[in-house]
Amino acid sequence: DSKLKIFSLNSNNPLAKEIADEMGVELGKSSVKHFSDGEVQISIEESIRGMDVFIVQSTSAPVNEHLMELLIMIDAVKRASARTVNVVMPYYGYARQDRKAKAREPITAKLVANLLETAGATRVIVLDLHAPQIQGFFDILIDHLVAVPLLAEHFGSKGFKEEELVIVSPDHGGVTRARKMAERLKAPIAIIDKRRPKPNVAEVMNIVGNVEGKVCILIDDIIDTAGTITIGAEALIKSGAKEVYACCSHPVLSGPAIERIENSSIKELVVTNTIQLSEDKISPKVKQLSVAKLMADAISRVYENKSVSTLFD
Amino acid sequence: DSKLKIFSLNSNNPLAKEIADEMGVELGKSSVKHFSDGEVQISIEESIRGMDVFIVQSTSAPVNEHLMELLIMIDAVKRASARTVNVVMPYYGYARQDRKAKAREPITAKLVANLLETAGATRVIVLDLHAPQIQGFFDILIDHLVAVPLLAEHFGSKGFKEEELVIVSPDHGGVTRARKMAERLKAPIAIIDKRRPKPNVAEVMNIVGNVEGKVCILIDDIIDTAGTITIGAEALIKSGAKEVYACCSHPVLSGPAIERIENSSIKELVVTNTIQLSEDKISPKVKQLSVAKLMADAISRVYENKSVSTLFD
Ligand SMILES: Nc1ncnc2c1ncn2[C@@H]1O[C@H](COP(=O)(O)O)[C@@H](O)[C@H]1O
Ligand SMILES: Nc1ncnc2c1ncn2[C@@H]1O[C@H](COP(=O)(O)O)[C@@H](O)[C@H]1O
Repeated sequence: DSKLKIFSLNSNNPLAKEIADEMGVELGKSSVKHFSDGEVQISIEESIRGMDVFIVQSTSAPVNEHLMELLIMIDAVKRASARTVNVVMPYYGYARQDRKAKAREPITAKLVANLLETAGATRVIVLDLHAPQIQGFFDILIDHLVAVPLLAEHFGSKGFKEEELVIVSPDHGGVTRARKMAERLKAPIAIIDKRRPKPNVAEVMNIVGNVEGKVCILIDDIIDTAGTITIGAEALIKSGAKEVYACCSHPVLSGPAIERIENSSIKELVVTNTIQLSEDKISPKVKQLSVAKLMADAISRVYENKSVSTLFD
Repeated sequence: DSKLKIFSLNSNNPLAKEIADEMGVELGKSSVKHFSDGEVQISIEESIRGMDVFIVQSTSAPVNEHLMELLIMIDAVKRASARTVNVVMPYYGYARQDRKAKAREPITAKLVANLLETAGATRVIVLDLHAPQIQGFFDILIDHLVAVPLLAEHFGSKGFKEEELVIVSPDHGGVTRARKMAERLKAPIAIIDKRRPKPNVAEVMNIVGNVEGKVCILIDDIIDTAGTITIGAEALIKSGAKEVYACCSHPVLSGPAIERIENSSIKELVVTNTIQLSEDKISPKVKQLSVAKLMADAISRVYENKSVSTLFD
C-alpha cells in the first residue's frame, strides 16, 4: 500500500539495494535484459499505477548503455501510469562536456538533461555535479546533494591535529570545494597552481599556501585517469608535506588510474560509491564511503514533499 | 561553396563514403572518438554555418553506442549553426519495440523518435521501417525509402521463368511486402502460416498457396537470429519447393544467424548494406546489394527541395 517504489537499473545495484534497505522497502520488480542483437529489453513486473517512482542509475561506464537503459526505463515507468518519475543519478555522466571549449563541439551535458526530460522524468536527484550550473540545464526540479560532509567526517575521525591539516585543491577550478571541506575541518587551504611558462614548455607546479610539515588532503569532484591528483601529490611532497591523502566524490578511475595511485605517495584515496568499482579497480589504497543514507534521506524528503536543501551542505 | 555537407559516424562508414561518391562530394571532416572513460567526444572540423547537413548513421549494434553518437553529433551540428540537420538512418534500431506487446513495457521506437527531435534533427530519411506507422512517431519530416525494387531487380536478372516463381512471406505480418515484390516480378504469393494447435505444443507450419516444383523467394524486412526464415525454408522444401532463396532489407544477423543460414536449404540470402556486416558475418551464401544510389538520390532531392515520394515504391 506504499505509494513509493524504487527501481534499480544495471549500473549500481549494490547502492540501490542499500538505499532501499535504509528506507526499509523492497526494490521494485523489473527485468532489464538484452535481445539477441543487443537492444535493451525492459519490463516492469508489478503495478506502479499512481505511484511515486524513483529510478536509481549512475551514468558511469559504459555510459551510453547506462544512459539508454535509463531513458527506456523512464519511458516504461511513464507509460505504466506512475504519478511522478524521479531519476536518482548519483553520478551524472557527460558532465564535463558542459560548454563549448572549442568551436563546433556539442554540449552533451545539456543534451542529456533534455533527453531525460523528453523521456518523461519529472524530477532529478544528483550528487556533486562537475559544475553546479548544470542544474540550470533542467526545466524540471533538480536536487543537488553534496558529499563533502561525508568525506570531511571520515578525515575528521582520523584524529589529525587541527594545526597540522591543510586542504588542497588540485587546480584553481576546485577552490570552492576545498573551502567547504576546510571549513568543516577548521583547516586552512592551499592551491596547486599549474602554469605553462611558454608554449611547448612543461608545466610548472606552484603551490599557493603553506604545506610544509603538514598533512595534506587533496579534494576533487571526479578522479578519472588520476593524472592531476598524483602529480599534485608529488608536488606537495616536494614542497615538504608530511603526508598526502586524496578524496573525491566520483571514482571514475579509468585507464592508468589505479596504477598511478598505487605508485604515488598518496597514503589513502577516499571515494564514495556513486560509481560501482569493478574488480580490477579494488585497491588497498582506495576506501569507499557509502552515500546510501544521504540518497535515502533525499528520496524520503522528496516523497514526503519536505525540503531537501538541508542535505545540500 | 556547396551548401550541402554529408557527415559519417561510426556505424557504416563504407556506405556513407559510397553515398558521397555517388553525389560527387567529399565527406565532411569530423572527429568521433572516445575519452578515456568511454564518453563520446565529437568535434566538427570545418565550418557548416548556414549549410544543409546530412548525418549518415545506422543504429545497428552496438545500438546504444551508435544512437548516442548520433544524438551528440546532431547537437554539435545544430550548435554549429547549420541551416538544417538531416538524419540519414538506413537502419532504424529499436523499430521492433513499436507498441506495448505486454503491460508496462516501453515503446522505444517512439522514444528514439522523440530523442532525435529533441537533439535537433529537422528531417529524417529512413529505409524499410519495421512498421510504416513509425513514420507517425515523428513530428518532423520523414522520408521512407523502400528496398523492394532493388531486391526485385536482383532476382529479376536471374532469368527465372515467370511461371516457376513464387514470392513467400515468412509470416502473416509480411504479406504486404511479399505482394509488392510479387507485383514487380509478376509472380504469385504464398504465406507461411504458423499455428500452435494447443499451448506447449510445437507450432505447425501451414503453407497457404502453391509452392510445389517452384522457385521460392522468401522476403522479410529484418533477418535477426534467422530462426523464422530458416524454419520457413525447410517447410517450403518439405512442401515440394524446387529451390528457396531469401532476402531482406536489414541484415541484423545476430547470434546463431549465419550458422543457421549456412546449414539451411536456402540457396542464397540477398540483403542490402543498410547494416555493415562484421567479418564474422561474411558468408558465401550472403550477397549484399548497395542502397547508396537510392540514398544519394533521396539526399539530392531533399537538398533540391524536390519530391522524394517517387523513391517510395
Ligand atoms: N569524459 C571526459 N574525459 C576527459 N575529458 C573530458 C571528458 N569530457 C569532457 N572533457 C574535457 O574536459 C574539459 C572540461 O573539464 P573542466 O575544465 O575540468 O571543466 C573540457 O575541455 C572537455 O573537453
Ligand atoms: N531487438 C529485438 N529482438 C528480438 N525481438 C524484439 C526486439 N525488439 C522487440 N522485439 C519483440 O518483437 C516483437 C515485435 O515484432 P513483430 O511482431 O515482428 O512486430 C515484440 O514482441 C517485441 O517484444
